[in-house]
Amino acid sequence: MRIDIGNSMDPVSSPGLTPELMDSLDSKIRHIHDLIAPKINNRDFGYAALNPLNPEELKNFQDFMDQFSNFSNVLTIGIGGSALGSATLSRTLGLPGHMVLDNIDPSHISTTLSAIDFKNTLVNIVSLSGRTIETISNFFLVRDFMKKQNIDWESNTLVTTSSSGPLYELSKKHNLPLLPFPENIPGRFSVLSPVGLAPFAILGGSIEELIKGARSGFNSLSGSLYDSPAYAFGAVTTELSNMGISANSVMPYSENLETFTEWFAQLWSESLGKNSLGQIPTRAMGATDQHSQLQLYRAGKRNLMVTFIDILDHQTSLSIPSIESSDFNYLSNIRIDSLLKKELQTTEASLADVGCPSVRIELEKISPFHIGELLHGCMASCILSAELQEINGFDQPAVEWGKRALNGMLTGDQGIESQATQSKNQYWIGE
Amino acid sequence: MRIDIGNSMDPVSSPGLTPELMDSLDSKIRHIHDLIAPKINNRDFGYAALNPLNPEELKNFQDFMDQFSNFSNVLTIGIGGSALGSATLSRTLGLPGHMVLDNIDPSHISTTLSAIDFKNTLVNIVSLSGRTIETISNFFLVRDFMKKQNIDWESNTLVTTSSSGPLYELSKKHNLPLLPFPENIPGRFSVLSPVGLAPFAILGGSIEELIKGARSGFNSLSGSLYDSPAYAFGAVTTELSNMGISANSVMPYSENLETFTEWFAQLWSESLGKNSLGQIPTRAMGATDQHSQLQLYRAGKRNLMVTFIDILDHQTSLSIPSIESSDFNYLSNIRIDSLLKKELQTTEASLADVGCPSVRIELEKISPFHIGELLHGCMASCILSAELQEINGFDQPAVEWGKRALNGMLTGDQGIESQATQSKNQYWIGE
Repeated sequence: MRIDIGNSMDPVSSPGLTPELMDSLDSKIRHIHDLIAPKINNRDFGYAALNPLNPEELKNFQDFMDQFSNFSNVLTIGIGGSALGSATLSRTLGLPGHMVLDNIDPSHISTTLSAIDFKNTLVNIVSLSGRTIETISNFFLVRDFMKKQNIDWESNTLVTTSSSGPLYELSKKHNLPLLPFPENIPGRFSVLSPVGLAPFAILGGSIEELIKGARSGFNSLSGSLYDSPAYAFGAVTTELSNMGISANSVMPYSENLETFTEWFAQLWSESLGKNSLGQIPTRAMGATDQHSQLQLYRAGKRNLMVTFIDILDHQTSLSIPSIESSDFNYLSNIRIDSLLKKELQTTEASLADVGCPSVRIELEKISPFHIGELLHGCMASCILSAELQEINGFDQPAVEWGKRALNGMLTGDQGIESQATQSKNQYWIGE
Repeated sequence: MRIDIGNSMDPVSSPGLTPELMDSLDSKIRHIHDLIAPKINNRDFGYAALNPLNPEELKNFQDFMDQFSNFSNVLTIGIGGSALGSATLSRTLGLPGHMVLDNIDPSHISTTLSAIDFKNTLVNIVSLSGRTIETISNFFLVRDFMKKQNIDWESNTLVTTSSSGPLYELSKKHNLPLLPFPENIPGRFSVLSPVGLAPFAILGGSIEELIKGARSGFNSLSGSLYDSPAYAFGAVTTELSNMGISANSVMPYSENLETFTEWFAQLWSESLGKNSLGQIPTRAMGATDQHSQLQLYRAGKRNLMVTFIDILDHQTSLSIPSIESSDFNYLSNIRIDSLLKKELQTTEASLADVGCPSVRIELEKISPFHIGELLHGCMASCILSAELQEINGFDQPAVEWGKRALNGMLTGDQGIESQATQSKNQYWIGE
């Protein structure tokens, strides 16, 4: 994995980074790296996410997962980081058989459940606290559904939760297999921990290669901006954000990476969206959204950067056949991957032409190794960005208000949040 | 359809609209409506999008589509507005059998094509100009694929294009059925025209109900902000954008509306992202993204608004069963739709609590009628917003640079754009 920040540099980009700013960032990063490297090594707090599983942990995890080798499908029940990490792994790497219930839309739940063959499906319920309302609700619905189909739900359920809490109690009571949610890793940083890995393991993905990629990312974290693509990405996005670039559009030129953009959006939003700071993560799919959002990116306010993701080898050889029409002669025998690459190049150039900042992350190919490296790199960028801004990247205090309000509405506890919810300001137009 | 703008009003929202500003907007809208109502009625330029098909046009269209009644599936080949409208209709309204090729990712194309039963699938190729590179490339790939499977591709292909251009010529040469792309409607405004409707018709959707909904939207366009939910939405978002709210996160509490958020993103970006104006459209799925992006929306920079979409009747009755564990007692027998509604209410209140602006669009249910009304309303909002800002909502000049550069790279024409593309500024970090 490498990153090209050329199009975020002044004067190509306006605003843009100068060599002097880069040098000053490099000094800060040296200092920050000295502070966090021991925390990563000791697995303090969320820094643990950057320290990949060691061979012994990997073996223990795989031994634990062996008991599920008779399942060919997984239904993950979770929300936010409890579902997005594993969904990102299976969808990015093209492993079929992973269904995800991460919402409480009744018609969507019904459609999802009726399409599942529960005999061959492991139900994988994931909640750090063990009391996430959406997850617990979906679990009880699914359990009821299995019971009605005469499925022995206790043999088909894996629980991932912390070492206390109601879901932990329930799993003890029913003697369900239990995967401990790592104590110090928030959900959005859990993709390379057993939380994210369990479905991937059941579907036959190569955990070893994924962790090898993560380890390569770990090894590339040096104290210098000039050596580490992850730190470079974190530093560039942070400085651009300081200069008024309030949104970051992740634009992969690969359909496989669509779910990855959602994972990235959570990572960026929950980690950095605090203290009136943060950058709005949005997404565009290359080449499709050149015909959708590019007009705005080029001609709108200069408040957005684009993070292109380029895959060097698409591992599928496909060429346009010879075309009889002279109108389309120039497309005859063109390789689709080379066309896609040209689309990226021209879009990148078209933004550079107007001073809209962008960076290009380059992956050799889509494989467990390279995706492991990419995910590790994004987490390292995010942690560096939090450090540069002196914020805690591992908490998410602003979501608590809504959770308390919802809890109050459900339990009848009229705390200040439920009261505020009920005294809503209304101004209706239309009928 | 109605809209609640209460949480975008000062002092609940900061920034927010005042009653005085509303009155002044109302006067402007009266004036604008007087100017554009005749254009809508005469179908001038893109204003035509707001004037729904009349009964005769509807009948002619349905008669034309009758020839495809033996097909149960559709493969749409298009990009941007040529694909997003029809994809939005089929996915929002839950009609299976609509595949879409709107990208040129080689592995995605291969996977898509190998899953299609071409005997029962109409290939629906859509390009206004008839020379859209991605669409033409995909079409030649698909045609080759069909030929190799001994499918009579000429009997399985519908072309939608303008009345000249290379795709038009090709369709004449091979005597393919031809649906004229409306002359004056840009792709992103074409969802309720034959462009968007064709796949929906083949899949058995009720075009009549959809158009009835659009007509209800059309009839609700009065010269007053206080009577028209569409104009209210356009006015509120425009004013908030003027006040520094640079992003609009569309957050439907319904999984069915996921593709709708992409359609909206194109509509908003290409129509309003010009002259250094525009609002970044992003999206969040309710309730899922409460556990992902809400932290940023509440505690980040005050530069984003949320457009909630609430479905009153989810048409699926699903309740959490009785729960034996006292920890979860309060969830016993709760209806899922009521839980989802409470999630929306508490999230909305949680944003109002910190002055983050939001609006709530309310649909009675997901049905062709109500979706027709919603899509019409979004297009009317968008057109009003363009008029309020004195910009042309129907062009997309900023995407031309990249198209010329790509064309130059493919044809060897070394215009200024291809030269700029090749002189890229590089600054690589990592290996």
